[in-house]
Amino acid sequence: MPVGTVATVKGVPQDILEELGVQILLGNTYHLYLRPGVETVRQLGGLHGFMAWPRAILTDSGGFQVFSLNELRKVSEEGVTFRSHLDGSSHFFSPESAMEAQIGLGADIIMAFDECTEYPADRARTKASMELTLRWAERSKKYFEEHKHEVPWNAAQYPVPSTQYPDGGATPAPMAGGNIWVLGTGYSTQSLFGIVQGGMDLELRKESAERTIEIGFPGYAIGGLSVGEPRERTREVVEATLQHLPADQPRYLMGVGTPEEIVEYASLGVDMMDCVLPTRAARHGLLFTAEGKVSIKQARYAQDAGPLDPKCGCRVCQRYSRAYLRHLYASNEVLAQVLNTVHNLSFYLDTMRRVRHSIQLGEESRFLSSVWSRPKP
Amino acid sequence: MPVGTVATVKGVPQDILEELGVQILLGNTYHLYLRPGVETVRQLGGLHGFMAWPRAILTDSGGFQVFSLNELRKVSEEGVTFRSHLDGSSHFFSPESAMEAQIGLGADIIMAFDECTEYPADRARTKASMELTLRWAERSKKYFEEHKHEVPWNAAQYPVPSTQYPDGGATPAPMAGGNIWVLGTGYSTQSLFGIVQGGMDLELRKESAERTIEIGFPGYAIGGLSVGEPRERTREVVEATLQHLPADQPRYLMGVGTPEEIVEYASLGVDMMDCVLPTRAARHGLLFTAEGKVSIKQARYAQDAGPLDPKCGCRVCQRYSRAYLRHLYASNEVLAQVLNTVHNLSFYLDTMRRVRHSIQLGEESRFLSSVWSRPKP
Repeated sequence: MPVGTVATVKGVPQDILEELGVQILLGNTYHLYLRPGVETVRQLGGLHGFMAWPRAILTDSGGFQVFSLNELRKVSEEGVTFRSHLDGSSHFFSPESAMEAQIGLGADIIMAFDECTEYPADRARTKASMELTLRWAERSKKYFEEHKHEVPWNAAQYPVPSTQYPDGGATPAPMAGGNIWVLGTGYSTQSLFGIVQGGMDLELRKESAERTIEIGFPGYAIGGLSVGEPRERTREVVEATLQHLPADQPRYLMGVGTPEEIVEYASLGVDMMDCVLPTRAARHGLLFTAEGKVSIKQARYAQDAGPLDPKCGCRVCQRYSRAYLRHLYASNEVLAQVLNTVHNLSFYLDTMRRVRHSIQLGEESRFLSSVWSRPKP
Repeated sequence: MPVGTVATVKGVPQDILEELGVQILLGNTYHLYLRPGVETVRQLGGLHGFMAWPRAILTDSGGFQVFSLNELRKVSEEGVTFRSHLDGSSHFFSPESAMEAQIGLGADIIMAFDECTEYPADRARTKASMELTLRWAERSKKYFEEHKHEVPWNAAQYPVPSTQYPDGGATPAPMAGGNIWVLGTGYSTQSLFGIVQGGMDLELRKESAERTIEIGFPGYAIGGLSVGEPRERTREVVEATLQHLPADQPRYLMGVGTPEEIVEYASLGVDMMDCVLPTRAARHGLLFTAEGKVSIKQARYAQDAGPLDPKCGCRVCQRYSRAYLRHLYASNEVLAQVLNTVHNLSFYLDTMRRVRHSIQLGEESRFLSSVWSRPKP
């Protein structure tokens, strides 16, 4: 899932994302709550209407950003007080208010409010944090069940203002010049996923998984990783946690990873992943190719007439030379960010397509060995 | 002609420019000479190959930028010494070196090196400046005639390195992953246009036009306008100058203008115009619509579900709401620049399409009256 923090995958128009084959985007509740605000998004029909994206969307709970962007946060049983990175204003997220925000944003998949345990943490601290996340998971589910029909595209609860119906209410009107947004029937709601915590402790991970499943969600995420631990430890925790999660429900590993990592975790059984790496690296001129990473800012590419990745079929590799991409980056041109992001997303989505293809063919091992034989970045 | 200063229309991929119907782009010799440098562009096949743009390109002579960006320039009979805005290094442009640069950049249309007379200027100064431009026009043409076969896509003079020919020289190879660049036959060259100066003095404009025509070029530009004079004066000078320029050759008015102005100048007989206004205004959130200018940053658009311009068929107006465009701009998101620029270019190109259509129908007056009846921005 490409990350579209404030309802945009930085620099890439939505129709290009569609062409790339993006099936689902991630939005960040923390950022959207601060700007443009939940009420604005709700009034525009939720994120789908607001950002003109008819495909799937997932929002995180806001918890991770509160923990990673806020040094002044204050955690209590009730929730978290934090300061806006935009203007320093004080805000409060509880399981209930995080659900309220995510229902208003109207993504297809939303996440329980959790505490992301810091790394390193001792066993007592890890267990206490896990218990808090479990209590918050129950409160998240309770609020969601009581309010899930308030999602903005649920027409039965939230009739669209009659100004949007030219004939007075019978037919949804075109929004923004032609696109018809199909409104909910009054029966569809979002899906709330639970999040497993437990730090680096495999026993606590098992307990967290089992007790989260007991609460009951249509999908489960593994949170609290990629927080500074060594990569081998990540893999160990992922592998140990996965065996306690139902294989017939989506298993979502949050916040990973490199192309090699997403192949590896998919092979372990992870179904969903999100990461800022392809888009953020693109903005820094770091490009993923079949031949390893390319730092396009390097002078060695200044007169290189070849494509960025000769094996890539994306619109960037089909049209532009490394010399041109290098020039755009060196000149600090906006098109550098646009083209670099399109390519990196294409590389990631291609990787996942190959993973899916490989799974369909039942040839995971052959696929993996071919991946590992490629030069390492 | 949209302006693509350093071989990119800021923020817009080339395929979107093609979809918009852009027939010709302008590149700035001054900027390209400084970065990435003429030799780099030449080695990549000229601007067409470098920026992967198979349609037409025009480069200015560098003169205007030297005058507008350089407070420390020093003009002599020989040429102009100036400092780079990038690193302060010292450079020299003469008619000969400006031609050499433009031949290396390989645009389809290139411009004689001229002095853009400052505004205001008295008659003596204006005449002296006009005489200098005339002498430089002769030198520009002389150098061009002697070196025009050195254009990088002229295969007879500049065979493409054999590495680009997989079969050793018979066939042009795909560049950057698939596009075949058709190389010159050895007979095609660029077109060098002359520039009429003469300040705001209609007699000097007439003299400049007649003596530039005497030197002889395949097209003529009107330079030295949009330099701070009142708009009525611009129109007066354009109208007076046009009657001395051959109607069966392209007449190019440099550096204008607003949508209303380009319609007006086209009705006077101008064939070509370039301006940074649509792209620069877009970056500042100023958008042109059939109902006048829209400053998308305004809070009044924060929850506006309607399209930017209900009468516009561009991909931005067809998909996104004003609320979303306002959010992108307020959040300082790169996509704001991309989408705003696409819309403004679409508006300008639509305007020119309507102008051409109107000319074809012989209904200029009817078209103009319908334009003037629209609300003024």
